[in-house]
Amino acid sequence: MTVETQTAQFDSISLESGAGLSPVSVAYETYGSLNASKSNAILILHAFSGDAHAAGISRETGKPGWWDNTIGPGKAFDTEKYFVICSNVLGGCQGTTGPASINPATGCAYAMSFPVITIGDMVRLQKMLIDHLGIECLLAVAGGSMGGMQALEWAVAFPERVIAAIPIASTARHSPQQIAFNEVGRQAIMADPDWCDGNYYRGKPPGRGLAIARMVGHITYMSDESMREKFGRRLREKEKFGYDFSVDFEVESYLRYRGSQFVGRFDANSYLYITKAEDYFDLTNGSGTLGPAFEKVKCRFLVISFTSDWLYPSYQSQEIVRVLRRTNHDVAYCELPSNYGHDAFLVDIAEQSEVIRGFLASTFKEKA
Amino acid sequence: MTVETQTAQFDSISLESGAGLSPVSVAYETYGSLNASKSNAILILHAFSGDAHAAGISRETGKPGWWDNTIGPGKAFDTEKYFVICSNVLGGCQGTTGPASINPATGCAYAMSFPVITIGDMVRLQKMLIDHLGIECLLAVAGGSMGGMQALEWAVAFPERVIAAIPIASTARHSPQQIAFNEVGRQAIMADPDWCDGNYYRGKPPGRGLAIARMVGHITYMSDESMREKFGRRLREKEKFGYDFSVDFEVESYLRYRGSQFVGRFDANSYLYITKAEDYFDLTNGSGTLGPAFEKVKCRFLVISFTSDWLYPSYQSQEIVRVLRRTNHDVAYCELPSNYGHDAFLVDIAEQSEVIRGFLASTFKEKA
Repeated sequence: MTVETQTAQFDSISLESGAGLSPVSVAYETYGSLNASKSNAILILHAFSGDAHAAGISRETGKPGWWDNTIGPGKAFDTEKYFVICSNVLGGCQGTTGPASINPATGCAYAMSFPVITIGDMVRLQKMLIDHLGIECLLAVAGGSMGGMQALEWAVAFPERVIAAIPIASTARHSPQQIAFNEVGRQAIMADPDWCDGNYYRGKPPGRGLAIARMVGHITYMSDESMREKFGRRLREKEKFGYDFSVDFEVESYLRYRGSQFVGRFDANSYLYITKAEDYFDLTNGSGTLGPAFEKVKCRFLVISFTSDWLYPSYQSQEIVRVLRRTNHDVAYCELPSNYGHDAFLVDIAEQSEVIRGFLASTFKEKA
Repeated sequence: MTVETQTAQFDSISLESGAGLSPVSVAYETYGSLNASKSNAILILHAFSGDAHAAGISRETGKPGWWDNTIGPGKAFDTEKYFVICSNVLGGCQGTTGPASINPATGCAYAMSFPVITIGDMVRLQKMLIDHLGIECLLAVAGGSMGGMQALEWAVAFPERVIAAIPIASTARHSPQQIAFNEVGRQAIMADPDWCDGNYYRGKPPGRGLAIARMVGHITYMSDESMREKFGRRLREKEKFGYDFSVDFEVESYLRYRGSQFVGRFDANSYLYITKAEDYFDLTNGSGTLGPAFEKVKCRFLVISFTSDWLYPSYQSQEIVRVLRRTNHDVAYCELPSNYGHDAFLVDIAEQSEVIRGFLASTFKEKA
């Protein structure tokens, strides 16, 4: 299935901060067909470094989408039944307006003059896209990690427009530990002299800082156990310690590779803006209690977490489930066994797929 | 109790890598008095960023030692009973020979020409100090984190010289996750242009890189729960989000403060060398099995770990305990409840103190 990223452009968007953007573009892909009653549309929401290319083979790059194991004919999000949409988030760097985009007022990249955005802003832009596509009501919104935050935000912000929400390995608010890891990444980027206060688009990007940030990220995406299984203490291309500061262990070479690879595909300023949006996310609105946010919610929920995910631990999903239950909402919860840590929602998908498949089928049958 | 750091100098030391250092100095402090039979000496081993000033008030700085809550009259390591010694590790930057020391052959700081050192090398220098002090046999060796690795190394390398070992919140070998966090710190330092391949001693130290490394460290020293208790999502000196990249959350300001504070007291090259020594540490000698290392061991053990320590998780201590038990050694194990994460051995010391006190008393009575 070859796919192509499309773009929709809108005159403007108003942001939670009070600022605005004009115009604003959103990159998206679709898979499968919208049925006549427009009742089979599912919006997939990507995680921090994802993009609109969720499934199929990109006509441009030849690469499969980031959730191609989960979206497609006969897969969990079955494109023979459902019309699946995925868009790049606001503030991103894969086609949707972000800090690397040209500010029409100046003719230069926004860089750090780009307004700070929130998960709510991302979702409002997605809603404009859904309007643009003529879809009155989404059968489901679904995503892992930051995608799960967007799914929750959809349920709260547009209760009339969503029938089901599937937040996976996610949270209703970023914890201080989650904020702390993001802050380290931001500081690493901003400490890189090539960052130049964000004005690096005509020069060299802050690749060293961005690579450090990504290395930290990758440690948090894996589990202690999955790292032991994947790397152990195996040495890289040698039999004994080098007794120097070249790569000794396979885990070091893996991290350096993932760090440098990321620099080629991601914008450092987008890293700053998107992590900030994650950190601001708090459905309790500073109160510490989720009840009020969920009062207006109308959709049903499937909440999924993974046993070895220590970045978005199960207790965060369970808090959502408890409050939804207490406020008498339709919620199913699965804590799936996996050694893969936070990455599980992307890689350990057998059981997750079955759970999603069943949940979508019953939702489609009952509600659509 | 006012204390002063002393220095012992030796002609040379041979290192595991095959390299050597000549001369070599070791900074140390002592607390309490050595008894006539020299049977009451305890060697305290510091963690990654510690120093020889473990207890009392420094005559030079006026500051209490890093384990002053645990060492002193009537405390866990009771200086009315025991003669307590603590030295700065080889490769350190607090008086013992390290990369910032002057290489007498060149008249310049060693910088990256300093040889790579190991936990075994640190312990061999400590053994030279103990010989120098005229102590035939240590009543105990004790330390947390990297200090625990040194305690284990003492038990294995010098079985005739140690009666008891107390490794706390430690491991017999660094896991890939532990190596990974260290590698991120090293990469952050080496990515800082001020690092200049280690030759920064006449200029500006790589403060930005070192601060990033320390921020990562501090996240791993705390637990998710202790961070929630300490910071929550509280904002720093404002009532609402700033919608900019200044500090929003208290946890951000804490990390930035701890990062910048560290730059003033620690040498970036020492960071590289000491983390490398930790990563090389593997009592299984690459075999994955601890039995052979523990065969020659003669001392008794008190192994302590903490429930919320995810950097040096309890399973690592339990592996040590299992193998010691299986090889018929005298080993007591306590997994202490604490929310403080890895920091617990430094801050949550009430129960730890009681356990250590009892273990030392029985050891002193039976063996000394």
